[in-house]
Amino acid sequence: MNWENIFASRTSRMKASEIRELLKLLDQPDIISFAGGIPDPDLFPTEDFQKAFAAVLSDERQTAALQYSVSEGYAPLRQWIVSQMAKLEIECEIDNVFITSGSQQALDYLGKLFLSPGDTALVAWPSYMGALGAFNAYEPEYGRLIATGNRSAADYRQAAQNNNSRVKFAYMSVDFANPTGETMDLTSRHQLLDMADELDIAIIEDAAYQSLRYDGEVIPPILALEIARKGDINSTRTLYCGSFSKTLSPGLRVGWVCASKEVISKLVLLKQASDLHSSTITQMAIHEVASKGFDQQVAKIRSSYAARRDCMLACLEKYMPEGVTWTRPEGGMFVWVTVPAHLDGAELLAQSVKTQKVAFVPGRAFFADGSNGNTLRLSFSQADEPMIDEGIKRLGALLRSAA
Amino acid sequence: MNWENIFASRTSRMKASEIRELLKLLDQPDIISFAGGIPDPDLFPTEDFQKAFAAVLSDERQTAALQYSVSEGYAPLRQWIVSQMAKLEIECEIDNVFITSGSQQALDYLGKLFLSPGDTALVAWPSYMGALGAFNAYEPEYGRLIATGNRSAADYRQAAQNNNSRVKFAYMSVDFANPTGETMDLTSRHQLLDMADELDIAIIEDAAYQSLRYDGEVIPPILALEIARKGDINSTRTLYCGSFSKTLSPGLRVGWVCASKEVISKLVLLKQASDLHSSTITQMAIHEVASKGFDQQVAKIRSSYAARRDCMLACLEKYMPEGVTWTRPEGGMFVWVTVPAHLDGAELLAQSVKTQKVAFVPGRAFFADGSNGNTLRLSFSQADEPMIDEGIKRLGALLRSAA
Repeated sequence: MNWENIFASRTSRMKASEIRELLKLLDQPDIISFAGGIPDPDLFPTEDFQKAFAAVLSDERQTAALQYSVSEGYAPLRQWIVSQMAKLEIECEIDNVFITSGSQQALDYLGKLFLSPGDTALVAWPSYMGALGAFNAYEPEYGRLIATGNRSAADYRQAAQNNNSRVKFAYMSVDFANPTGETMDLTSRHQLLDMADELDIAIIEDAAYQSLRYDGEVIPPILALEIARKGDINSTRTLYCGSFSKTLSPGLRVGWVCASKEVISKLVLLKQASDLHSSTITQMAIHEVASKGFDQQVAKIRSSYAARRDCMLACLEKYMPEGVTWTRPEGGMFVWVTVPAHLDGAELLAQSVKTQKVAFVPGRAFFADGSNGNTLRLSFSQADEPMIDEGIKRLGALLRSAA
Repeated sequence: MNWENIFASRTSRMKASEIRELLKLLDQPDIISFAGGIPDPDLFPTEDFQKAFAAVLSDERQTAALQYSVSEGYAPLRQWIVSQMAKLEIECEIDNVFITSGSQQALDYLGKLFLSPGDTALVAWPSYMGALGAFNAYEPEYGRLIATGNRSAADYRQAAQNNNSRVKFAYMSVDFANPTGETMDLTSRHQLLDMADELDIAIIEDAAYQSLRYDGEVIPPILALEIARKGDINSTRTLYCGSFSKTLSPGLRVGWVCASKEVISKLVLLKQASDLHSSTITQMAIHEVASKGFDQQVAKIRSSYAARRDCMLACLEKYMPEGVTWTRPEGGMFVWVTVPAHLDGAELLAQSVKTQKVAFVPGRAFFADGSNGNTLRLSFSQADEPMIDEGIKRLGALLRSAA
């Protein structure tokens, strides 16, 4: 059977990521890896989860934990999220909160909700590659979103029209973005809101790393700014995507969307048709652990990751040759490195793995047009300080010899 | 903001099911419900799950239980499924098995993999409404699949061509189908394979109820028949969708697809982009419970549901007026009732809830063209025998007065 004959047209954009395949091979003990953007498992609240699963399976929740449930998500968890959102100046009700299987699913559903083939999605250059992967299934065109307000709504509209397309949303990772580690400043958030109002499009605010701030001043979420402007979440166009993956556990796959009721009700229909609901017991366990000690857990992670970030920034200063630059994130997991223009991240990775036993993610995969090959993403969440020092030292040696 | 302006075209086919909304209201203690097609929670292996979650969170699996994982699914569970498939004469390897968040997600992904707008999906009349819901998101046309081989490949091809469309797959719930309770016989399975070969399309074999046979002879899955014809699963066109929802627990959302490696590898890419992976800990718990006592659990459920089916069939015989007919399922959860042509299931439900306090699902929602309103789906999985007797008696009275 020639399957290509009957696959949908979208599958032409679904390719195995070469990088991901390469990185699979790197899961070896002698490699110092700055590649995977994944939490340090030593920081998981494992004991709390032991207690939580035992509790929900032994008290009055035990039947609901194993039975079919509603597509909206577990109500007590949604209510807990309402109270967290309030701390971020996002006043909302339970009907403004929708539980997803990780925030990756939120990105998939929002692509599904808005994108018909050929529609334009505005994305940052670079963007989280998982967002591009999710949107690709709905066959959009991409427009380059400039965070600094140097481009007007008319420019974006014209660029889309030149492609026989129309803009549907702007997607933005706002705090300590994956992959750059950068944070969108207050002025840029307001400019994005102005532009979205003028274009009459949605804003997808990816807040996966929001809790992981190590220093600097908290900047209100775009959704909070828009509620302040318009008076009510149900009049807003911002779709806030949150996640427990970076704070409690990624393996349980629990995230959420906070947005106007009209959008939430559509997402519920979408979920009903695509997986009925997220696993009930994992939602209950997340609720149990979050309501008993979310802030302490976040404080523990912050303190550990902040030290690693400091170490990585100090080591970059110490070991990198001239011509190499990098970002200075106030939180999150990533530092974004730019190397001289004649170097290529993928080639550097191949060399680095062979000669230095150090891994990272080449930057090209984060650009919708595959440009900017001379960039690398380094994650500091998984290596301890001595390993960071050794790894950056080796990387510095590699770049010195490659330059 | 007028959201309708920017929603994708697929959303015009995503409507809140009136039936589902109505049924939500029926979750009251004084209603006898034959409506929800959901397992009896008294039969859940709750203690086994208590032990399973405690085990995976305390032994060497604890880190992997909470960390990001691979999109293919938890390898030991996939391996266990390989051994189960072998019992059904389906010889396969771990790379032929892909874990989904319930078999609903398998249907969504298969729709996503094959359907571009306007493509034709062949479906039974009636079909599981959740399958129609999943496929609708990819904007297909529907062709009516006749299980008995009275329609040739040329007929199906011509019907699609008349719509400027091409057939991509045939979807079929094979054993004790939702909603009819009927089982596709061996001859029809072979005819479907012949037809699919000639049309060069995929077959989606929905086997959600496969384990729940109460009597009659086991009929090999279509995938088993095709492997026998072609010698190797990697040469087949049948995509077998299995589920733990009817045997161990629906709330954990674990199902699987068993198919040729080429399709599985595409599904893995699809999952990577849409939710990364299904919750690891629930896959581990399902594996733990299944490998320790799947057969005993299934035996317990079969014995309980078989008695309820017997009771429901006997009560239908006893209480139904002339002109009402029904199926006699050899397994599963459903009996399908046809009432005189001038009656409408939705109107009967409204009356029944008011005057008889009995609920069921009107049949129209299971037909892709919304036809056949004079049908009802009754589930016998949730009510005990005295309730079944009382409920069918009341339904008989209603139909007698309506006729």
